[in-house]
Amino acid sequence: MSHNADHPSDEFALIAGVFAPLAKADPNSFGLTDDAAVIAPLAGKDLVVTADMMVAGVHFFADDAPDMIARKLMRVNLSDLAAKGAAPHGYILTIALPRGVTMPWLRDFAAGLAQDQAEFGINLLGGDTTATDGPMCLSLTAMGWTPHGQMVRRAGAQIGDDIYVTGTIGDAALGLIVRRDGAIPGLSSTHAEFLLARYLLPQPRNRLAQELAGLIHAAIDISDGLAADLGHVVQTSAVGAEIQLSKIPLSDGAAAALDLRAVSIADLISGGDDYELLFTAPSSNRPLLAALGRTTGDKITRIGRIVLGKGVVFADQKGQSISLKRPGYRHF
Amino acid sequence: MSHNADHPSDEFALIAGVFAPLAKADPNSFGLTDDAAVIAPLAGKDLVVTADMMVAGVHFFADDAPDMIARKLMRVNLSDLAAKGAAPHGYILTIALPRGVTMPWLRDFAAGLAQDQAEFGINLLGGDTTATDGPMCLSLTAMGWTPHGQMVRRAGAQIGDDIYVTGTIGDAALGLIVRRDGAIPGLSSTHAEFLLARYLLPQPRNRLAQELAGLIHAAIDISDGLAADLGHVVQTSAVGAEIQLSKIPLSDGAAAALDLRAVSIADLISGGDDYELLFTAPSSNRPLLAALGRTTGDKITRIGRIVLGKGVVFADQKGQSISLKRPGYRHF
Repeated sequence: MSHNADHPSDEFALIAGVFAPLAKADPNSFGLTDDAAVIAPLAGKDLVVTADMMVAGVHFFADDAPDMIARKLMRVNLSDLAAKGAAPHGYILTIALPRGVTMPWLRDFAAGLAQDQAEFGINLLGGDTTATDGPMCLSLTAMGWTPHGQMVRRAGAQIGDDIYVTGTIGDAALGLIVRRDGAIPGLSSTHAEFLLARYLLPQPRNRLAQELAGLIHAAIDISDGLAADLGHVVQTSAVGAEIQLSKIPLSDGAAAALDLRAVSIADLISGGDDYELLFTAPSSNRPLLAALGRTTGDKITRIGRIVLGKGVVFADQKGQSISLKRPGYRHF
Repeated sequence: MSHNADHPSDEFALIAGVFAPLAKADPNSFGLTDDAAVIAPLAGKDLVVTADMMVAGVHFFADDAPDMIARKLMRVNLSDLAAKGAAPHGYILTIALPRGVTMPWLRDFAAGLAQDQAEFGINLLGGDTTATDGPMCLSLTAMGWTPHGQMVRRAGAQIGDDIYVTGTIGDAALGLIVRRDGAIPGLSSTHAEFLLARYLLPQPRNRLAQELAGLIHAAIDISDGLAADLGHVVQTSAVGAEIQLSKIPLSDGAAAALDLRAVSIADLISGGDDYELLFTAPSSNRPLLAALGRTTGDKITRIGRIVLGKGVVFADQKGQSISLKRPGYRHF
């Protein structure tokens, strides 16, 4: 951590008391006392580096629970490592704190980080804390290991590949509505709570992802919405894709919201924050992928295929394609 | 770059047009199309990682020139790599942009990054751009290489070591006054411009630093002020330090400001943003260090020594010690 004493609370005490314990497990963090960390090379491995920034009022609500904000920040980055087939190693955290942030808030925030460090096997290596007169601004740079030269790319999709997604799609877009409006008219509180949890706390597929790496051609994590992220895959791979809308896996809550016409299927595949994996694989790997899903307990669903051409066609059960007004994802 | 289309301007065009050229030199950035970069191991080397965040209104003025903001962001991190004796490799950039930021502003910002990439031999590897309703928030994670197990530490200072600084001390603290007030009464515009430039554009000592690594015991870059940063060295090394105030190297501009009583010597050693190196070395290395300074053209000045005890004593020419009201550094 940089030692700029530019915050009303004593940043040194803050670092020692709140963040240093998160760096204890890796001696190469030097207990955050040295303003830099070391990553020693692992034989035969590459280091994969990715980063995401989250701003209050854009990516989360300022009054979200601090541990959930911390865990979402961690998990959106873990999800990027998962898409690359990378085993989590460590992370760098930089945070700009509004002057009203309290020590209890920071302790809860750190507790959320600690919980996910243990769950995903990743450690704090360093970072910086500073003050801001604006909304809280959080940036995390995550690092992980892949076998040398074998990082899973977006650009690897091949014509004839099957297209798969993990988990269910569109839950977080609905959870955001629940977070903002308190409920979705007609939807049970059980469904609403499930969807809210899916929005607040992504479940990145890191364990599965490392097993998948040898079986797939391309992958991306679904952060901007299935439609937009598949768009990135086909664009970088210079191919097209056909998706069967009826095959897109929906949770009971999302299916109920769809029945209520609270949202359309287009909304669900355009909404962000799923943090599921989308990947493409040769059809010869269908049996292995099915077996892997059974072994790890991850839901894996084949939803379409990679074709010659460009762009993505979403077809309904009658074979009609639908058009998306906004394939990208806009935060609230 | 993450592809959240959460900014009024088209983020994709922004990435392709403005930031992707900065990533061109390193194929392992994948042209910023893959949301992650790869760092392949170098035999016998460790990767050193450090990060600093800068917020408008805290670390820079929102109306500072965009290329200077960019270069300062880069250089405060390069300065951390220099303190570690690390050769710059690459960086991850995350930025939260107020909605009023224009494409010309961004192009100037990127031009500043490009200029310092060329000067310091470092490349953009990836990152994230997002929107904010608050002040601009910039975070940079810098990575560099040291020989395995040989990163220069803060904690290595040994009793009897000489203490050195590079360049001149306190210029940036005066430059900040010039930036804020437009002038320092009585100080020539030549001096004022020199001091302002020292504040706006740090000159990190990366080339020298790699040569120093084998000759020194401990180092830190002076970002929080000489007094505070030397304090970090003695605290982590469990030693004390004695500094001769008369030996602290001052620029002509700083000396003139001191003569005018615009500031005290205590202000100059408590002010931040010098981004010079402070290091300790055994006295047996005095001839080698003097020769090295002559070779590289870097000004290296011996200002004191490491002693048994704790804390830092600053002594004037009569041997009287001075006390510092605020040894830490507070941003404006």
